[in-house]
Amino acid sequence: MNQPKTIKNVLLEKSRTIEAALAQFMPAAGGPFAGHIESMHYSLFAGGKRIRPVLCLVAGAAVNSDPNVEQALLPAACALECIHTYSLIHDDLPAMDNDALRRGRPTNHTVYGEAAAILAGDGLLTFAFELLARPNPLLSTDRQLRIIEQVARAAGPEGMVGGQHLDITYENQSYPFSMLQTIHRSKTGALLTCSVQIGAIGAGASPEAEAALSAYGAALGLAFQIVDDLLDATATTEQLGKTAGSDEAHGKATYPAFFGIDKTRTLAREAAETAKAALAPLGPQATQLYQLADYVVSRSR
Amino acid sequence: MNQPKTIKNVLLEKSRTIEAALAQFMPAAGGPFAGHIESMHYSLFAGGKRIRPVLCLVAGAAVNSDPNVEQALLPAACALECIHTYSLIHDDLPAMDNDALRRGRPTNHTVYGEAAAILAGDGLLTFAFELLARPNPLLSTDRQLRIIEQVARAAGPEGMVGGQHLDITYENQSYPFSMLQTIHRSKTGALLTCSVQIGAIGAGASPEAEAALSAYGAALGLAFQIVDDLLDATATTEQLGKTAGSDEAHGKATYPAFFGIDKTRTLAREAAETAKAALAPLGPQATQLYQLADYVVSRSR
Repeated sequence: MNQPKTIKNVLLEKSRTIEAALAQFMPAAGGPFAGHIESMHYSLFAGGKRIRPVLCLVAGAAVNSDPNVEQALLPAACALECIHTYSLIHDDLPAMDNDALRRGRPTNHTVYGEAAAILAGDGLLTFAFELLARPNPLLSTDRQLRIIEQVARAAGPEGMVGGQHLDITYENQSYPFSMLQTIHRSKTGALLTCSVQIGAIGAGASPEAEAALSAYGAALGLAFQIVDDLLDATATTEQLGKTAGSDEAHGKATYPAFFGIDKTRTLAREAAETAKAALAPLGPQATQLYQLADYVVSRSR
Repeated sequence: MNQPKTIKNVLLEKSRTIEAALAQFMPAAGGPFAGHIESMHYSLFAGGKRIRPVLCLVAGAAVNSDPNVEQALLPAACALECIHTYSLIHDDLPAMDNDALRRGRPTNHTVYGEAAAILAGDGLLTFAFELLARPNPLLSTDRQLRIIEQVARAAGPEGMVGGQHLDITYENQSYPFSMLQTIHRSKTGALLTCSVQIGAIGAGASPEAEAALSAYGAALGLAFQIVDDLLDATATTEQLGKTAGSDEAHGKATYPAFFGIDKTRTLAREAAETAKAALAPLGPQATQLYQLADYVVSRSR
């Protein structure tokens, strides 16, 4: 038997798979739309962690050991990364967080201008749905449609976009912890949870397994966001590849602002434990998801 | 037998159907995301002409007389209007055309601010795909997926968004007529053509009928855009409900700039004739599409 892979190796291997698939799926920067396509490539191929697509693939593998599952899920996994990248481009715009640095590079609008950056985001969001809808011989049309609906809900007005609207609306205002939870759940949690869910749907998980993975995804999304808040408050800009201390500078409520650093660390670990506990019904096939929950809490960027 | 309806009555009746369906499908402006949803409602329910969804419904009826076809197509028709509205909100932004008036009202960013307007557009675009992917008992999953893919392609990097990128890139520059054609085909033509195509797909058109409708849609899209250029140059702001003379003010090439007003009128009529000729294989069921082509050329806003 092979040595079990460390989670870092799994992440590295899967993120390479995603890079290759993104490069294959994205239109090449040629022809009349080369300028627009180049501006999308700039942000998409900037070395993100690829957490969402990796989660999708690993969740699929946790409920179905058929090696075709990864191939079946790749377009959806890449669509998640396109949507995540579009949200970063728009969040960074001067009208939003006005950030100059992202993934260790100047932000999209800094390089291509505001108008082109808005359109790069629009293009990536729209292209994500093309990827999700393209004929996929490894996925039934029923499952493909369910996945598209889930992604649209998670990214839409009552998910990620709605959360971003709350985030900018409540800048520099004091609000109760329940609002922070609503913002986190919608702005970051919804798409992370969705990443796990569509892995489950694409892999044909049983309703019980799908429920377990949904619970895992929700808790993992929370852990992820708490750690994001922590890193913003404690890490350096160089470590993060984006401007550190941005939350405080924008008057945004965060877990550390509500609870202090130490209690926040505890809450992140607790959320990861909740995520791991949700995996119990899945047995040893879910080991990598289990390890991913620990990784999310220990990550440094 | 009933009197044949005039095309104006058809447009009025179908646009009322669309208004009612949009009101039914859109999330209500309540709950935590009320502010975001309200900003989407503001632009969506501002009395647009609803040309794209009407085209979709009328194209469906032209190839399939089953009264269920309209019901089957309504979510897709409404999705087209959401996508068109998002494109208007983003086009009007200060970083793009910086327009203050749209559909006879202050533009979205003028009312809600730039950040909320960017998000209102993002929300409408994402919600459109939710609408397209929701379970639809009147449409096979195969057809639903084909429709989603078509819409994503028409609205995406090599369609509407790519066209808008060209449009802003070439502002105040001189370029050949072939580039104007590329911009028109992608920025406006692609989604108009798609509106007809998805009506055909949803109604189960034969490949021959689908090809005829695609040719119709492409020619109609061209006629529509030529008339848009004409109206921008000749109508008043009051008539248009948006700032007249905007093309010239932004240094945009248009049909009148290339050909003068009279020749442009002729070209619009020719495009409408091409559209009508493409309908020949469909017979008398296509009468309303035939009349719509004439309407598009004669419209005053």
